[in-house]
Amino acid sequence: MFLLSRRWILGLNFGVRWQKITIVGVGLLGGSIGLAVRKNRLAKCVVGFVRRKASIADCRQTGAVHEATLDIEQAVGGADLVVLCTPIGQMRQLTEQLVHALKPGAVVTDVGSVKLPVVQQLEPLIAKAGAYFVGSHPMAGSEKTGVHAARADLFNRAVCVVTPTVRSHKPAVRQVEQFWRAIGGRIIRLSPAQHDALVSFSSHLPHVVAAALARRVLDPARPKEQTLLCAEGFKDTTRIASSSPVMWCDIAVANRRNLVRAVDMFIAELRAFRLALERNDIRAVTKFFETAKSRRDAWCTARQITTGR
Amino acid sequence: MFLLSRRWILGLNFGVRWQKITIVGVGLLGGSIGLAVRKNRLAKCVVGFVRRKASIADCRQTGAVHEATLDIEQAVGGADLVVLCTPIGQMRQLTEQLVHALKPGAVVTDVGSVKLPVVQQLEPLIAKAGAYFVGSHPMAGSEKTGVHAARADLFNRAVCVVTPTVRSHKPAVRQVEQFWRAIGGRIIRLSPAQHDALVSFSSHLPHVVAAALARRVLDPARPKEQTLLCAEGFKDTTRIASSSPVMWCDIAVANRRNLVRAVDMFIAELRAFRLALERNDIRAVTKFFETAKSRRDAWCTARQITTGR
Repeated sequence: MFLLSRRWILGLNFGVRWQKITIVGVGLLGGSIGLAVRKNRLAKCVVGFVRRKASIADCRQTGAVHEATLDIEQAVGGADLVVLCTPIGQMRQLTEQLVHALKPGAVVTDVGSVKLPVVQQLEPLIAKAGAYFVGSHPMAGSEKTGVHAARADLFNRAVCVVTPTVRSHKPAVRQVEQFWRAIGGRIIRLSPAQHDALVSFSSHLPHVVAAALARRVLDPARPKEQTLLCAEGFKDTTRIASSSPVMWCDIAVANRRNLVRAVDMFIAELRAFRLALERNDIRAVTKFFETAKSRRDAWCTARQITTGR
Repeated sequence: MFLLSRRWILGLNFGVRWQKITIVGVGLLGGSIGLAVRKNRLAKCVVGFVRRKASIADCRQTGAVHEATLDIEQAVGGADLVVLCTPIGQMRQLTEQLVHALKPGAVVTDVGSVKLPVVQQLEPLIAKAGAYFVGSHPMAGSEKTGVHAARADLFNRAVCVVTPTVRSHKPAVRQVEQFWRAIGGRIIRLSPAQHDALVSFSSHLPHVVAAALARRVLDPARPKEQTLLCAEGFKDTTRIASSSPVMWCDIAVANRRNLVRAVDMFIAELRAFRLALERNDIRAVTKFFETAKSRRDAWCTARQITTGR
């Protein structure tokens, strides 16, 4: 007790809840988690696992972690909490590499945008090692990638979905929820399957739509003046088309069944509009835009955000 | 000469090029034009025509015009330049009302998002009155409406399409181009038909897509958690779905043929993606996202804007 530093006595480190947190993959999300954990002094030590040597310097420059390493076993050894922040396509292989180094009782979570395949793959692997896996999906991001785009406030007010299963260790679920709450998130608990069905509409479909729009409108076969006539509306509608293609291919494939259905329902919506327009059905066309506006405006009001940028 | 005020002598009013500019319809666009004209001292007098008494007070509050009136003939009488800023569905009727009050040689332009039907209707009407019509479309806007959302810098660096025809009076075309340039716009000259084909892709299609997305994802028949899982990507992709439904119905109907074709081509783009995804064709799915990103990023670079917000 007498060895506590002044900082502790003043209560400034009151928030420390983990001795060691390891972030596997220190990009936009991993880096933002690191910055948020450090800013809120939630852990004594934040270690980052990275794949490339250059990333160690990036981590140092941005201060996203206390220490970055290329050695996955060293990274996760002794960690109380491990957060997987790689594209979901790499999670299984990485888990197979790190699982032997996990401390018994360690809690592992992830930030993957699709949950059912991730949970089905990682939960048994990690359970076998005497540790606990609980899937997460913090609904925050950016079209930018890399640790240089990381922000300590990325998860402020962001919805963080936590997806326990019947096999989940309850204290581990609570710990993961506490973690997201501590860096600003708002928790929603869903089953992995429920999560995947819902995000196929709210997140994956918008990415496909934005990408299709950017491809279609900016097709080099269009007249050369086409790009000059794209303005602010086009810019915002397609913003997320500038996201990482590899990451979004991973997500689309992992959530294929749900996403195909969402795309089909979206095409049906467009077809109904197209038919009304072709028939010059002013009432139906007006209603189409009215319903869209009233639903979106109501959503903005409920989320206490402005309808604009 | 000796009667020139100090301001004139100091060159502060050097920019005055019009004695009287009339803005017909003082909403977001009309109000922003008024603010920009006043800020740049381009006219001695800016008059606004409004439909409702309450709008006169709004105009006064925002300072968008020197004087607002409910009397259309009084509004346009003696004006050198008249800018029609109403929804395109109202332009013909309003022009029939104001045409008799036009000064011979006055120049009339508009801000309508569709040009062929507007030009076809207004050009002969205004020519008969001994005045000149030249269609315009400043590519600037907001999902917000009304004069309270007006901004003097709305047209800064905005592309302003000017659409002369073979019947256009050349000095009038130059005057309209000077006008948009004077409030910050960048001029592109296109035929009305070319314009309409191009904006059906770059502007009208994104509005339809954003509206369809907002309708589909926020459909009350979806599970109650659905709205909670909509985050930043959804917000930006659907921003323009919060625009004025009446205005967008007008635009969609006026540009029906082009828009139906654009929607068809967009659906084809989505279908190709859906097929690749269903077949688990990783290469095609990755390519879909890659092409979208590279085209959009190249567009952002060419426009000297960031890929983000």
